[in-house]
Amino acid sequence: MAKNEITSAEKIILGIDPGTNVMGYGVLHIKGTELKLETAGIIHLEKIDNHPLKLKHIFEKTLRLIESYLPDEMAIEAPFFGKNVQSMLKLGRAQGVALAAALFKNIPVFEYSPKKIKQSVTGNGSATKEQVAAMLQQLLHFEEMPKYLDATDGLAAALCHHFQNTNGSKTAVAKKGGWKSFIDDNPDKIIS
Amino acid sequence: MAKNEITSAEKIILGIDPGTNVMGYGVLHIKGTELKLETAGIIHLEKIDNHPLKLKHIFEKTLRLIESYLPDEMAIEAPFFGKNVQSMLKLGRAQGVALAAALFKNIPVFEYSPKKIKQSVTGNGSATKEQVAAMLQQLLHFEEMPKYLDATDGLAAALCHHFQNTNGSKTAVAKKGGWKSFIDDNPDKIIS
Repeated sequence: MAKNEITSAEKIILGIDPGTNVMGYGVLHIKGTELKLETAGIIHLEKIDNHPLKLKHIFEKTLRLIESYLPDEMAIEAPFFGKNVQSMLKLGRAQGVALAAALFKNIPVFEYSPKKIKQSVTGNGSATKEQVAAMLQQLLHFEEMPKYLDATDGLAAALCHHFQNTNGSKTAVAKKGGWKSFIDDNPDKIIS
Repeated sequence: MAKNEITSAEKIILGIDPGTNVMGYGVLHIKGTELKLETAGIIHLEKIDNHPLKLKHIFEKTLRLIESYLPDEMAIEAPFFGKNVQSMLKLGRAQGVALAAALFKNIPVFEYSPKKIKQSVTGNGSATKEQVAAMLQQLLHFEEMPKYLDATDGLAAALCHHFQNTNGSKTAVAKKGGWKSFIDDNPDKIIS
């Protein structure tokens, strides 16, 4: 019974991919083993030529998403490598304002690199955006593919975070602490 | 009379220098031609090894400063060049959370490079921290030099921003649009 209670626990994960041109977001509702897509989308920032105004948009959108969907946790796609210091500074700022919204609302934040997200969702760290989107479509049963592939980036971050906390994915297990901890957590899976 | 009203207008400027190890801040109260130091200090972040927790500190401190001193404007020291993409990403995040606090409270933000701040305060873009601090001490009449020189960095950003909006400094004039705009703004200063 206790186990049932744990496995049927509900959790809402907000995933975001903050960039300086486009911000992708997605909200995943987990109910036991059931995965449900609450929302996914993007906000266009490329037409805003004022950098502080872009940041304001990212901050306010993240805040509104938190207030609307009341996520338990936030997952963020966070590249750690970039072409040059200028673009990394701008990316850092975009990440910073999104993080601030979560910190302000006391939502725990988890960061994942783009490679880790692809690997977690598709099993391949070098998967294309289309492959990630196709896997999300299959797992979350959405009928129409979002108009913009970027819309799936935030969602993929949320799903990746979910997989880190479940045993549903080899990647998740590997990241959590390897087979040793997997075995410790799942003694019933040992063939004796 | 109208001129008197303008020159005696009050303004409060919050200056901050957000970094990943130390954040400097200062609040400047301007009453006509009188400059008053409200507060200046630093928060130590180097002992916090958790990056999101550092960001939370910067966000909350900036928010508290805004709520305590109700600044009209915020000035931020924002380096645009750095050694490597990793440190620039972290710096961008630190700047981002500080900016988010101001954006959240609808405080207009103005950015200045370290060089511009030094030049504006001391007249020399390559001035040392000690020279900047000494000039601040002279202009703001504080008796004791702050224990940490970093404490004057935020304050210098605030003063630099003030100089951009006054004719009290050659640098400020030059940055605003050169002598042409200075002459347009100050027809009484033309010797005819």
